[in-house]
Amino acid sequence: MSKLQPISGFPEWLPEQRIVELEILDEIRRRFELYGFAPLETRSVEPVEVLLSKGETDKEIFALQRLAADPGADSARLGLHFDLTVPFARYVVQHYNELTFPFKRYQIQRSWRGERPQEGRYREFYQADIDVIDRDSLSLHFDAELAVLLHETLTALPIPPVTLRLNNRKVTEGYLRATGVDDPVPLMRILDKLDKVGPAAVAEMLAEAGASEAQANAALELVGLPRQGRGVVDAIRRLGRSHPMLDEGLEELDFVLGELTAEAVVADMSVVRGFDYYTGTVYEGTMEGHEDLGAVCSGGRYENLAAGARAPLPGVGSSIGVSRILARLFARELLSVGAKTPTVVLVALPREELRSRVASIVRSLRERGIAAEGFHEPLKYDKQLRYADRKRIPYVWFPTDDGDEVRDMQSGDQVRAEADAWTPATPAAATT
Amino acid sequence: MSKLQPISGFPEWLPEQRIVELEILDEIRRRFELYGFAPLETRSVEPVEVLLSKGETDKEIFALQRLAADPGADSARLGLHFDLTVPFARYVVQHYNELTFPFKRYQIQRSWRGERPQEGRYREFYQADIDVIDRDSLSLHFDAELAVLLHETLTALPIPPVTLRLNNRKVTEGYLRATGVDDPVPLMRILDKLDKVGPAAVAEMLAEAGASEAQANAALELVGLPRQGRGVVDAIRRLGRSHPMLDEGLEELDFVLGELTAEAVVADMSVVRGFDYYTGTVYEGTMEGHEDLGAVCSGGRYENLAAGARAPLPGVGSSIGVSRILARLFARELLSVGAKTPTVVLVALPREELRSRVASIVRSLRERGIAAEGFHEPLKYDKQLRYADRKRIPYVWFPTDDGDEVRDMQSGDQVRAEADAWTPATPAAATT
Repeated sequence: MSKLQPISGFPEWLPEQRIVELEILDEIRRRFELYGFAPLETRSVEPVEVLLSKGETDKEIFALQRLAADPGADSARLGLHFDLTVPFARYVVQHYNELTFPFKRYQIQRSWRGERPQEGRYREFYQADIDVIDRDSLSLHFDAELAVLLHETLTALPIPPVTLRLNNRKVTEGYLRATGVDDPVPLMRILDKLDKVGPAAVAEMLAEAGASEAQANAALELVGLPRQGRGVVDAIRRLGRSHPMLDEGLEELDFVLGELTAEAVVADMSVVRGFDYYTGTVYEGTMEGHEDLGAVCSGGRYENLAAGARAPLPGVGSSIGVSRILARLFARELLSVGAKTPTVVLVALPREELRSRVASIVRSLRERGIAAEGFHEPLKYDKQLRYADRKRIPYVWFPTDDGDEVRDMQSGDQVRAEADAWTPATPAAATT
Repeated sequence: MSKLQPISGFPEWLPEQRIVELEILDEIRRRFELYGFAPLETRSVEPVEVLLSKGETDKEIFALQRLAADPGADSARLGLHFDLTVPFARYVVQHYNELTFPFKRYQIQRSWRGERPQEGRYREFYQADIDVIDRDSLSLHFDAELAVLLHETLTALPIPPVTLRLNNRKVTEGYLRATGVDDPVPLMRILDKLDKVGPAAVAEMLAEAGASEAQANAALELVGLPRQGRGVVDAIRRLGRSHPMLDEGLEELDFVLGELTAEAVVADMSVVRGFDYYTGTVYEGTMEGHEDLGAVCSGGRYENLAAGARAPLPGVGSSIGVSRILARLFARELLSVGAKTPTVVLVALPREELRSRVASIVRSLRERGIAAEGFHEPLKYDKQLRYADRKRIPYVWFPTDDGDEVRDMQSGDQVRAEADAWTPATPAAATT
């Protein structure tokens, strides 16, 4: 473990870690599918113009070039996607007539960014995204559904607890407008920094951005409200501000909070999200004890996924930063890794003549879904046991002349067994 | 389906096709794990020098360049891997001390090649690879195991039958040496073309390459032997040639064929594989009725996976060309696609007041592992049914005032049901 050094932002795992990563990706997928999200995988590349038009700086895009190609020979330059939203938007426009709306899709894929690697930021990384989009308008029902799904999924993973903090940008914007602010967006970007820089610095930045002292104080009063459930709506009303957009936001926030059941999803007025992209519900989550890592999931409601379709495509989406979570937990040995192989049973080969008998035991176990391998050479038992031990294979099977026995490698217990009937003691072992 | 146009070698599927692709990838993974192969995923990039040193022409490698980087600024240029063997070899050397040998790994990942796209050849494609490597020497047992696993896996997939044709390059080389050929490798490359160009053209090419008429005839006699099982060893012996390498090859071939149980794995002396890389067992498979597509899987034994490790690393590996298979079958509508979503039950929303009741039915179904979604708006039933129909959701649930009913969308049957007890009629539907 200590020798694992991610190279220049391209993390790579040992087999025992990859087994854990797959378990996590499987669980994420299972939850997404349980909620009716369809799997989607897009190609890894998009035309560079498409990537550039989505607000990334050109420094962050990896363009592809065939090594021997003449400079400029590729008329359509391609680059690796830097997120899963841009390819999804392109895909929806391209396949508009083939999709049924509301379209619910999940996408678990790698993305690439040419930024300077640091903890939590990689040049190649996995994200798990879900989005629901519809034509013309999208039911608020989905804002709540995504928050519930996101929270349920994160809770099911073997990672530290994630509290999902939720807000609605209409509340923030409407509230600021109610205090007489005409251009709230720059101030919202400042409020989003509250967690990082604290209220004093935010107040200073608000003043620099042109807010009056009263406006700055009012804004800090809003974002400083304690995290809470549905009661937040009354708490905000008690601040005594009034604006149509604020009312609309509070109504939406109240509906979404009303649909939530988990205590670990809370309203938090300090969540504003820097992206102007989001127009309503917004949320983000940090892992308990790992707040310094930043958000491990985030999402929100947007007005239009993509220009170019026949109708506006409002949506709500979420993203889980899988690589960010795993890299941190692996590095700090906070995710327990176990076996180095999916094998549940190693069938020992006592001597060459028993090779076909070993093969038949192995076949019988595999037919019943138990991952098994036969040892390849009739070495001394202690060498075969060492192989099982090193790979942390939980059971070793010994074919003997008067019946077979199987040893539980952890307890050392050895019992009689028959290949067409025996099952591992813990069901967990069978799926490790 | 007919509108699906893979763009410039980067194939992309509709959700209903991706569901099928995932089922296939899951089944491949399940089989690989059942045989004790550990999952591995490598980063997508390698240093360009590493890629170039492995015999690819520079035209086929996609190098990465950050758009705004100064030319030559990236001292270590990176390129996308063009197969899964090169990164695997690098990985094994890098993690040599952390791996337990024999090391059995599978790797199901995309690779990229800058070649001209055509049917069966893509710029971005999936392969599913398995390899076993050991230090110093590797048991012949694994040559057979991989052939069995490969055949078993392909047979389990919903694709046309694949016949696995197997040979041993020592047989071919030893046989040629026995006829007095001193430099057999160039002739073996010619023999490998038999399927494509026929015996007359092969004879001509052999002559051009310096083979005598007798040598060419003898070679054609070998590669022309009918496909068969273990009997091939005697058939070759009856050709009356003798050479130590031929004897060694025949012994290996006999052992491997003896371990095989499937009739669809046959010895075929015309399988030579152009790669000099392979030194013993070689095999390849084509799909019945799609021979023009070329090999959909191939593999073989090699002497050394990678220079630079402390010991030679002999191995045997196989690769399934997943994208090649899927693109062909999707294009010809030979793979049946079904639902456009994993949802098994759509719970209709009769009116706004029942929203929380619908939510509780949905929750109850999901808790029992049944993928479900509640309709988001109290639209007329026919609109909700149309949504289910278009996405091919198999069941629609109707909450009514005097108990719930669920409709089987295919048969039209509608029955009473309770959310905490009902299960879909076909278990298959639950996992579609």
